[in-house]
Amino acid sequence: MNDTPLPVTIRDVGLRDGLQILARTVPTAHKIEWLRAAHAAGLRELELGSFVPARLLPQLADTAALVEAARALPGLVASVLVPNLKGAQAAIEAGADAMLLPLSASRAHSLANLRKTPDEVVGEIARIRALRDAAGSRCLIEVGISTAFGCTLQGRVDEDEVLRLVQAVLDAGAERVGLADTVGYADPLQVARLFTRAFAVAGPRLGCGHFHDTRGLGLANVFAAWQAGVRRFDACVGGIGGCPHAPGASGNVATEDLAYLFASMGVPTGLDLHALLALRERLAQRWLPGEALHGSVWRAGLPKTMTEAMAKETA
Amino acid sequence: MNDTPLPVTIRDVGLRDGLQILARTVPTAHKIEWLRAAHAAGLRELELGSFVPARLLPQLADTAALVEAARALPGLVASVLVPNLKGAQAAIEAGADAMLLPLSASRAHSLANLRKTPDEVVGEIARIRALRDAAGSRCLIEVGISTAFGCTLQGRVDEDEVLRLVQAVLDAGAERVGLADTVGYADPLQVARLFTRAFAVAGPRLGCGHFHDTRGLGLANVFAAWQAGVRRFDACVGGIGGCPHAPGASGNVATEDLAYLFASMGVPTGLDLHALLALRERLAQRWLPGEALHGSVWRAGLPKTMTEAMAKETA
Repeated sequence: MNDTPLPVTIRDVGLRDGLQILARTVPTAHKIEWLRAAHAAGLRELELGSFVPARLLPQLADTAALVEAARALPGLVASVLVPNLKGAQAAIEAGADAMLLPLSASRAHSLANLRKTPDEVVGEIARIRALRDAAGSRCLIEVGISTAFGCTLQGRVDEDEVLRLVQAVLDAGAERVGLADTVGYADPLQVARLFTRAFAVAGPRLGCGHFHDTRGLGLANVFAAWQAGVRRFDACVGGIGGCPHAPGASGNVATEDLAYLFASMGVPTGLDLHALLALRERLAQRWLPGEALHGSVWRAGLPKTMTEAMAKETA
Repeated sequence: MNDTPLPVTIRDVGLRDGLQILARTVPTAHKIEWLRAAHAAGLRELELGSFVPARLLPQLADTAALVEAARALPGLVASVLVPNLKGAQAAIEAGADAMLLPLSASRAHSLANLRKTPDEVVGEIARIRALRDAAGSRCLIEVGISTAFGCTLQGRVDEDEVLRLVQAVLDAGAERVGLADTVGYADPLQVARLFTRAFAVAGPRLGCGHFHDTRGLGLANVFAAWQAGVRRFDACVGGIGGCPHAPGASGNVATEDLAYLFASMGVPTGLDLHALLALRERLAQRWLPGEALHGSVWRAGLPKTMTEAMAKETA
């Protein structure tokens, strides 16, 4: 009998979600070192940047170059953020494997962030699907529903509205949909409830949990989502990232902490914890010196029980 | 129909577990301000100190004075740590409401920390129970089984051995028993499994979950224990504390983070979040300046959804 749990996929979004709120621009050569190190640590999905006008996010102006570099790495799914039709066109031309389209369930946040209502974004998703199909591209269309658990601008976000939008984006042609707590408002019971309800709507197309650790509940929320059946999570090495329209929001959950959580529970991720901790160290020392990094497991290191088990496996 | 979940009790252990590893000695007058502020924030169980020889822990030499101060506060359960028969005698004389007897499930840790094997500690617990009964005291006897999830010295700790010790301390006369991860080795699945098994042994006498946030899993472990039925947790305002025999161990879960977790989930704790955050601030500024505090919710503050709900409640 094989009772190994199903594997979990962690998509590192540091090169996009992590970098977009920093004032600095990391040189392309450093980003390529970074993405290669991430691949070497076992990561097989990376969000590499965003196809938005370079004047808005100069930090991410080299996204096409990163997609090209990523395509040389075996088995790597290169995903990019795309805010509109023009960005989708660029993602298809660059040869990205997946495009992530953000949609905010909070009307107030949607207007502030994208200058569109949620339903206007749904309309844009339908146009992007038509464009993608017409281009004969296989670039996967994933929608990330942000502020699904509450919003710094609007406050409460109605769960029925989130579920309506899940259905709407699937109807509009999205192939995968995820729920995001970019502002750190979610709690584990809410996460369990909303993901369970969303699974009833989206089935296996419910593809991702995206959590920030703003108030310390990040890993508890990841655990609750995992219990509800989620097997794919976004995270950033070093817990970098945030949202420019969410004051006080401080960082995605840390990739290395998720890898540690799942390794502790015996859930396979394909990730090399030592390599992830070394990657965090390179972020701190080489690519993002002086920036605030977050996360927890790097402080005390791996427990003796885990290093002993790892030694036994490789013996 | 009333579907409010059962309340959760948080015992703040900062004045004992938090202070015992600090080099500084906090003046008794400050500790009394601290315990009064904790009571005012809604805390109704406090661990106030330890009855160990003052030459070993001079920081806690004023424990009897704190118990006396606590007895003036309505509804407050004053608990103290007691390592042996002599300490139990002092706890009874001081009029403590509860004494916490530590027992390490790791033989290596038990020898290093108490210079006794786990079974020798069980023998001492039986003698303490006899002493307590002979004295006609009502001081509750609680045993905290530490290193229940793994040990920095020994590594793996056998779950069957933990459960054997749970039964043994109950047989020896303990009225309540808890499981502790003082070194931050536990993961949520392990927590769920071990607490579920321990409930089968101890029933309602399984009284407490004690978690450290050494590797970021503290709140996920609290959530998992809560799911398994635990309704009483130890924590420290500011996430202070650790274990002198557990290198790298960095702090109990933070009282204010637990209060936030449970408030988010609609679970009553009787705690005032604003007062807890103010108490943390007084720790940082007045009582423990320069010491490393931990925890998360203090950084970003409470979410808009929660402050709006609180305003509605008091309107």
